[in-house]
Amino acid sequence: MTLADNPTAIAAEAGRPVPISMEALPPNRWCKEVKIRFGYCDPAGIVFTPRFFDIFNAVVEDWFCEGLGIDYHDIIRRRRMGLGYASAESTFFRPCRMGERITVHVRLAALGRSSLTLQLHAMKDGSEALRGKFTIVITDLEQHRPIVIPDDIRRALGVYGIG
Amino acid sequence: MTLADNPTAIAAEAGRPVPISMEALPPNRWCKEVKIRFGYCDPAGIVFTPRFFDIFNAVVEDWFCEGLGIDYHDIIRRRRMGLGYASAESTFFRPCRMGERITVHVRLAALGRSSLTLQLHAMKDGSEALRGKFTIVITDLEQHRPIVIPDDIRRALGVYGIG
Amino acid sequence: MTLADNPTAIAAEAGRPVPISMEALPPNRWCKEVKIRFGYCDPAGIVFTPRFFDIFNAVVEDWFCEGLGIDYHDIIRRRRMGLGYASAESTFFRPCRMGERITVHVRLAALGRSSLTLQLHAMKDGSEALRGKFTIVITDLEQHRPIVIPDDIRRALGVYGIG
Amino acid sequence: MTLADNPTAIAAEAGRPVPISMEALPPNRWCKEVKIRFGYCDPAGIVFTPRFFDIFNAVVEDWFCEGLGIDYHDIIRRRRMGLGYASAESTFFRPCRMGERITVHVRLAALGRSSLTLQLHAMKDGSEALRGKFTIVITDLEQHRPIVIPDDIRRALGVYGIG
Repeated sequence: MTLADNPTAIAAEAGRPVPISMEALPPNRWCKEVKIRFGYCDPAGIVFTPRFFDIFNAVVEDWFCEGLGIDYHDIIRRRRMGLGYASAESTFFRPCRMGERITVHVRLAALGRSSLTLQLHAMKDGSEALRGKFTIVITDLEQHRPIVIPDDIRRALGVYGIG
Repeated sequence: MTLADNPTAIAAEAGRPVPISMEALPPNRWCKEVKIRFGYCDPAGIVFTPRFFDIFNAVVEDWFCEGLGIDYHDIIRRRRMGLGYASAESTFFRPCRMGERITVHVRLAALGRSSLTLQLHAMKDGSEALRGKFTIVITDLEQHRPIVIPDDIRRALGVYGIG
Repeated sequence: MTLADNPTAIAAEAGRPVPISMEALPPNRWCKEVKIRFGYCDPAGIVFTPRFFDIFNAVVEDWFCEGLGIDYHDIIRRRRMGLGYASAESTFFRPCRMGERITVHVRLAALGRSSLTLQLHAMKDGSEALRGKFTIVITDLEQHRPIVIPDDIRRALGVYGIG
Repeated sequence: MTLADNPTAIAAEAGRPVPISMEALPPNRWCKEVKIRFGYCDPAGIVFTPRFFDIFNAVVEDWFCEGLGIDYHDIIRRRRMGLGYASAESTFFRPCRMGERITVHVRLAALGRSSLTLQLHAMKDGSEALRGKFTIVITDLEQHRPIVIPDDIRRALGVYGIG
């Protein structure tokens, strides 16, 4: 029984979340395929853990642009708002190796006055390899204060829906 | 009232953990100073979130070598054991800017049969800027199975103590 | 006259290579579009220089898989050959900002017994933003000795052609 | 005869620069020890090439602060000047593995009106493992134009001396 063979048992033993199946994913959600590159991996031959947060960050960036139709870079550059993280976490079910592909599904888990919480399910070969959870706070880049989520972003998030 | 001025209120509002004071840190713990480099920071002028996990990982590596007296690289290279992450999370209280210095305090929060949980308190100017929490599983690199923590590592962790 | 307005003059003043035009690129070459992400950029708002080498490395990886039809990861993982760099260099003509897209054209500049030299032209809005040059040595991962480029790789490189 | 045993022969064969000995380094130069971390290394077990540019960049940052007595971060943040790269290159003589330590010696190779060229010799166990060469241009961050190197920086560079 290896980690790869029985991730559910391993997770349960450690009191950790259990990977979900493809069927349990919310339908009609935006997702992105990510190729695991040589440069993402460490001497153990698997993705270097911090790099997963970089991968998740890139997926969130693409989700803003492609899934919500909001220009992520314009938010920061022209509108001078920051998309800061209040918290970031990830649970790892199965290691990912170079050359493999994962599909990251973005779920809007909560929407507050100035923050949103995302759950990112990274699926590999039909089961969840890892899961990210991020709470993002919209801030004013000049004063570094949380601000109310602007109308256009809130509207796009509303259309996307909490799942 | 900015994020920098009142992180505790911000955190409480969001239902997040509240930063601890220097006095609340466990005494006699190993810690490491980290300089926030230009290359760690993003266009918002603060540390790019994924990079914090890289910083925490480097602190854990140094803690093994300097705090526990265990050769981290030898574990992987010669002993063929992996220090895989079962979970990694961080809560952010205050942004860090290039040129600043943080001191990361390592607390051993839990010790299992094949895993250990660390809490990393990153202090800046006397209060907590961010907090990491990592559950590390010792694995056999050939079979990728969790293994019982070897005696020398368990002994060193025991001397360090759960705090 | 800004760097962005007149990169050719700036380069010439510094005795550096001058950016080439689209017309000067070798025809029928493999190229890849790369999106400049938020996380690639530094507090100056432009791509952090070391990150360009990461970007180039990813393009080379994709060129092997998609342009040459050689499984890059299999080379390392199963065939136990390394694609080590003997040298890596880049000349920067114009800064790249987040949200922009560059197209990286791969040119095989030289082919030796155990090494190949690539020139990577990164074009933005019709002119060259930066140029990379890499000499890659094929090595035996067990002994870390240069080895003769295997037949299938040499054949694929031959078809691609030196341009 | 391995790459590690005879880097000079390998380099000469490829028409590349030959590693210098400790004796050939300019005397009284600033240098910095760098520990090769687990997270710097790739599945081949050696430093991932792009990461070396990150390492060199960090050394240049420390050289400004510690070797020249110029606040690197203040240059960018308050004085609004950029330290952009016109070119960056590295020649690799011997691979570096996790747990090893290199000492990077900074040599000011040339000083122009608005640019400086650095040569970085990374020594390991008494011989050169890799060599970096960087041409840095001082720019105005608002207009992105090269500017004349400010007096305090030029003075500090003059004291350091071209070697």
